[in-house]
Amino acid sequence: MSHDLIKKIFLPRFANTALSVGDDAGVISLPGGERLAVSTDSHVVWPLFFPGGDIGRLAVCGTVNDVAVMGARPLYLTAGFILEEGLDFSILKSIVESMQKAAMEAGVEIISGDTKVVQKGKADGIYINTAGVGLIPGDVDISGRNAKSGDRVILSGPIGDHGIAVLVARGELGFFSDITSDVAPLNHMVSSILERTRNVHVFRDPTRGGLATTLNEIAQQSQVGIVIHEPTIPVNPSTAAACEILGFDPLYVANEGKLICIVAPQDAKTVLDVMHESPYGEQAVVIGEVVENPKNRVLEKTSFGSTRVVDVLAGEMLPRIC
Amino acid sequence: MSHDLIKKIFLPRFANTALSVGDDAGVISLPGGERLAVSTDSHVVWPLFFPGGDIGRLAVCGTVNDVAVMGARPLYLTAGFILEEGLDFSILKSIVESMQKAAMEAGVEIISGDTKVVQKGKADGIYINTAGVGLIPGDVDISGRNAKSGDRVILSGPIGDHGIAVLVARGELGFFSDITSDVAPLNHMVSSILERTRNVHVFRDPTRGGLATTLNEIAQQSQVGIVIHEPTIPVNPSTAAACEILGFDPLYVANEGKLICIVAPQDAKTVLDVMHESPYGEQAVVIGEVVENPKNRVLEKTSFGSTRVVDVLAGEMLPRIC
Repeated sequence: MSHDLIKKIFLPRFANTALSVGDDAGVISLPGGERLAVSTDSHVVWPLFFPGGDIGRLAVCGTVNDVAVMGARPLYLTAGFILEEGLDFSILKSIVESMQKAAMEAGVEIISGDTKVVQKGKADGIYINTAGVGLIPGDVDISGRNAKSGDRVILSGPIGDHGIAVLVARGELGFFSDITSDVAPLNHMVSSILERTRNVHVFRDPTRGGLATTLNEIAQQSQVGIVIHEPTIPVNPSTAAACEILGFDPLYVANEGKLICIVAPQDAKTVLDVMHESPYGEQAVVIGEVVENPKNRVLEKTSFGSTRVVDVLAGEMLPRIC
Repeated sequence: MSHDLIKKIFLPRFANTALSVGDDAGVISLPGGERLAVSTDSHVVWPLFFPGGDIGRLAVCGTVNDVAVMGARPLYLTAGFILEEGLDFSILKSIVESMQKAAMEAGVEIISGDTKVVQKGKADGIYINTAGVGLIPGDVDISGRNAKSGDRVILSGPIGDHGIAVLVARGELGFFSDITSDVAPLNHMVSSILERTRNVHVFRDPTRGGLATTLNEIAQQSQVGIVIHEPTIPVNPSTAAACEILGFDPLYVANEGKLICIVAPQDAKTVLDVMHESPYGEQAVVIGEVVENPKNRVLEKTSFGSTRVVDVLAGEMLPRIC
């Protein structure tokens, strides 16, 4: 529905280059020549607290990552809070402390804030919007449009943990698990990679819609094909088991601390080395490559040797996961 | 409550210069020397449509104005939508069209967007967050801290229309009126003033909490007193009548298209002249002056010749007015 809304309602009316490119952040050029990446995300995750994180950490990391994947150094965040009347002060305090901690880890400052209160029953505890501003170094040109045939597709670690951790935390599934959300700021890993090589074509974090949706977006933006290899894609055993029980494909489950990096083959080892040194990239692997055809498509070579088309999901599989 | 929250929960944890100054937007300096004003506002106004505007126009103008009152030229907005499941597509379309129209009037581009959908009953149709980025010209230094004893306080027009228009639109009062919200982008008026004189000390738009709250904020930021003269403060007759029936003081009712400008006495006429030429400033008047004592206080000389202290309200008089 989000895809549909964006195409039918928003894009025709807010037409401008930054938006129609379809990257995670808009890129703007200032008169002085500096380029900024600007992004926004509203967070409505339920429950507010889940193993590995909470709505506060999510709100900071989500926007930090959207800015970072443009190759930008995230500097500043704004935070807009919608509070449901009667929200426990201690819950709010704990969420704000978590935001502070995540902002410190990411090295960003929250420079503008706003709070609105709505009546009981008109929100679900708290919704948080963050917007982020980051500075793009002069010689960096990273976009979902830049994938080239022959490029390698690198993934920083196992997929699906965030979505499943939140779902389990709702307590509606009738089972418990040790799955922890991967929610984390990826900007330091991005900076470290760019320090070693400026030759990155695409960065992207596979959030809502999961790895499958993000790779499809990149394939369409770059008008290329992407082939991934099922056996190489890391999935934690508990998450794989939960997905099997629930009938989910982990390729479509949201992540909040994973980085996709698409580079020329000769740069793949450098990127992998840097990721392996990062606390959030220890299990980084090459999961596939960019091909010329079929254009705008993602294919998966399965463990059984067959090939299947990895489509974009029509609906939202897991609502309020972020 | 918002004041309380900000002081007790947010400020201690998000401590940084931009936030603690207490202006409507945070000011950041880029390595290249350019300064940006960055601001955010979440909008939860109810009803979504009211005479003179709607939540879409409000979301654009609110943030445009917060950026403009820093003396900045608003350039870019982000927009985050929280939609209640089942929201009528035609309502969304009409709100987005209104945003587009307001953005065109203000001359800003919406460069990043996000939509989240929550279950029926977990929001009230639609909430919209906007964040804005504007460029501050090199020689402009405008802040609520800059009011000086002897300065004149100029108000661009009649107060209280927005709050009362929204309240009447709720249909709970048992009466109707011809009151129209003043919601409007003020950035062109701000630019026109700055083209004629760079010597503006304070710009501010008196939104939530009304003129009284905003003047109190300025008095505290600048550590000065502000004296206003009741007979000079413009209030439309219908709004004055509604306030009388409802027991409201128009000084505390929200505006969404009014500008306060504080300047040295010799610059007052220039500012008034420019305001009078603007479509949103035809009724601009000098309403008072800045005094050295009593510090951090706003006083009103009433029509009867007496003087009263204009305090900050403890609670929120009108919830969900913006």
